Amino acid sequence: MRMRKKKWAQPWVDNHPDFVYQNPTINKGKWKELLHGETLHLEIGTGKGGYLNGMSKLYPNDAWVGIEKDISAGAVGARHAIEEENPQVENKRFIIANAEMLQEWFAPGEVDVIHLNFSDPWPKKGNHKRRLSSAGFLAMYRIILSEGGYIRMKTDNKDLFEDSVLYFLENGFTLTEFSVDYRRNPHDEDVITEYEKRFMDLGQPIYQLCAKPCSNQ
Amino acid sequence: MRMRKKKWAQPWVDNHPDFVYQNPTINKGKWKELLHGETLHLEIGTGKGGYLNGMSKLYPNDAWVGIEKDISAGAVGARHAIEEENPQVENKRFIIANAEMLQEWFAPGEVDVIHLNFSDPWPKKGNHKRRLSSAGFLAMYRIILSEGGYIRMKTDNKDLFEDSVLYFLENGFTLTEFSVDYRRNPHDEDVITEYEKRFMDLGQPIYQLCAKPCSNQ
Repeated sequence: MRMRKKKWAQPWVDNHPDFVYQNPTINKGKWKELLHGETLHLEIGTGKGGYLNGMSKLYPNDAWVGIEKDISAGAVGARHAIEEENPQVENKRFIIANAEMLQEWFAPGEVDVIHLNFSDPWPKKGNHKRRLSSAGFLAMYRIILSEGGYIRMKTDNKDLFEDSVLYFLENGFTLTEFSVDYRRNPHDEDVITEYEKRFMDLGQPIYQLCAKPCSNQ
Repeated sequence: MRMRKKKWAQPWVDNHPDFVYQNPTINKGKWKELLHGETLHLEIGTGKGGYLNGMSKLYPNDAWVGIEKDISAGAVGARHAIEEENPQVENKRFIIANAEMLQEWFAPGEVDVIHLNFSDPWPKKGNHKRRLSSAGFLAMYRIILSEGGYIRMKTDNKDLFEDSVLYFLENGFTLTEFSVDYRRNPHDEDVITEYEKRFMDLGQPIYQLCAKPCSNQ
């Protein structure tokens, strides 16, 4: 979801180098220490940060990092956290950059849960390799995931979901949770963003899965 | 789907012992020869036979066997085939019996495709083991499936579909096709029954998958 470019975003991000990173190689292997959490969650594609901000409040003892490549969206999320959350949360950080650099920032086995929420479906076949659940990304996720770590994915997009299930299975993951209409049952453990609520209000199902690497690979 | 008991069913079945079987152990290992087809399809739970009769006409060179435990439903399907199809199809047979006896009737590796269409969802937890996609049945299917053989499943039932995906993955199968709204795209290769059409007319999605045994198991 593209948003209008915000002129204040780049200077604001530059002014908050300890909360919004652009290339945090220095934190590689140290995130849990930095964020005082034993479980490290990584959301890739935070958009305006509704999920990351909501979940990091709901689970204050876990560590949360969000990546967003669109500086305007990412800055909205980070600014919301800085300005509106009280007390200032110490258990999260934002990264404004392309997720392809993931392994520069996270050590092997460092991440416990990777969250993919309503990722760009990249509908054209030629762009499928850009999907955050495509084979190239899954190979990276496998490396940075801890033992017992897993990926949580939610989407409203049928094609992306259908293809992603096969991507996971073809690339050495198995599914541990799976839903074709996740919100028909209450899931108070999982924050509903405004973006997600729009689909729910339209009566559209939310597709969800959890995937973990197969142990024999 | 239960239907009203038809009094004519049992005598009709008894009168057509070469077309409707009740315990065809004698055909074990010989179905392809009997039905003059190199690909043997087995539908478990034919209901009134709309799918089996439609598919066996669409693919006249394949061999088709349908199992239905409800004698009234099964007899309707078989009678329809006998009375209304012209010329008399020679590529199919019905079995009126409980599918738990499957291995008495089919030899290891004999079946190429197993079809599960709108199977009973058995909603109560205590009855889940009766589901045709549950672990006990999957173990039997694995044995009777040929090398390269697979299972095709369609359902309108969310709970059954969600649970079944996990049953397959937990029991050494992987998915090769997967859809959360199968009929949004044309699938002329797959007959739509009246039962299925009712859900489509209500705007309800049809869930579909193909599953094959993992080669390393």
